[in-house]
Amino acid sequence: MIEKPAITDQKIDKTLAERWSGRAFDPTTEVSNDTITSLCEAARWAPSCFGDQPWRFIVWNKFQDEVSWQKAIDTLSPGNQDWAKNAPILILAASVNTFTHNGSDNRWVGYDTGAASISLCLQATSMGLMSHQMGGFDSNKVKAAFSLPDDINLWAMISIGYPASLDELNEEQLERELKARERRPLSEQFFSGEWNTPLNSGE
Amino acid sequence: MIEKPAITDQKIDKTLAERWSGRAFDPTTEVSNDTITSLCEAARWAPSCFGDQPWRFIVWNKFQDEVSWQKAIDTLSPGNQDWAKNAPILILAASVNTFTHNGSDNRWVGYDTGAASISLCLQATSMGLMSHQMGGFDSNKVKAAFSLPDDINLWAMISIGYPASLDELNEEQLERELKARERRPLSEQFFSGEWNTPLNSGE
Repeated sequence: MIEKPAITDQKIDKTLAERWSGRAFDPTTEVSNDTITSLCEAARWAPSCFGDQPWRFIVWNKFQDEVSWQKAIDTLSPGNQDWAKNAPILILAASVNTFTHNGSDNRWVGYDTGAASISLCLQATSMGLMSHQMGGFDSNKVKAAFSLPDDINLWAMISIGYPASLDELNEEQLERELKARERRPLSEQFFSGEWNTPLNSGE
Repeated sequence: MIEKPAITDQKIDKTLAERWSGRAFDPTTEVSNDTITSLCEAARWAPSCFGDQPWRFIVWNKFQDEVSWQKAIDTLSPGNQDWAKNAPILILAASVNTFTHNGSDNRWVGYDTGAASISLCLQATSMGLMSHQMGGFDSNKVKAAFSLPDDINLWAMISIGYPASLDELNEEQLERELKARERRPLSEQFFSGEWNTPLNSGE
């Protein structure tokens, strides 16, 4: 597995550092049901506003139901299909839009579902799996193909699988997988006391 | 520290299992700048749509600038102030609303910021700190108090600090801290192949 841990000013948790969104999945290795349960448990225990847990996830498993899995793959943008077809698991991250306790609009559905999804991806990393979230899919196509309720929000499709071994990749794929991860400097987005005042941590 | 790890059908990563939103913070123990940097680095390396990193965080530290910290505490709902005043660190999770690369609306700003925030909270757990995200604060008051741009979204205030020792809590606080964590059953929110079809993982 390609390791390209986050480059940080201070050490961070190994799983947080090592999660990254690769594209070179191994299409031949199955992900067990127990492992899928672990992924979902990680999402399930994310925090949420009023404990509402607005997230809903659908898991498609190529090795258990290839027809449904293919239907889900077909909703991805062509560029994503190119590599996502090698990941045996595809997961939809969706949410209901109103609070269970009073039916009013919940403005945190995206925020909370994002937390649940990254928890699932971090759990994947901790078990040697690779994850890759995609915004590039056709929401209407997904809703139609799987008869989803109209009033839910579709946030991301998440590919999950074991990483392919490097010697199975062509030159273009290899270059893409080995490309360094990048983030903006901490000082541009993390402020101290006031907006736009960089964090005063000796940077 | 009170440990109440998630009760899961399959084992999950220790940090994911052990993060929970306590209220009993130790008001006397400072959080070092290096530790704050680690928290922010964890958020910084979260994934985002087009790698846009729409999140922005402001950190208030009681031990470094009590005036600003108090101003931030004052924006919380009274119920949250009651306990959040014991946490020496308060962090605002906000986001810009448009993509940097083309200025168009970014519908994933909440989703991506939620991922960054939970990453920060997981990093806190991994270092023995407690975190608690709150939706209960006055956005307009925050924007006015800290001259924030109009066009950003304010998602959560996050209390961070070391947990208080149990023998310093009164009976009501103790009961609240020891209350079991709860989530809906996996089968209600995690589906297999189709909407509302429970995950087929031997549950």
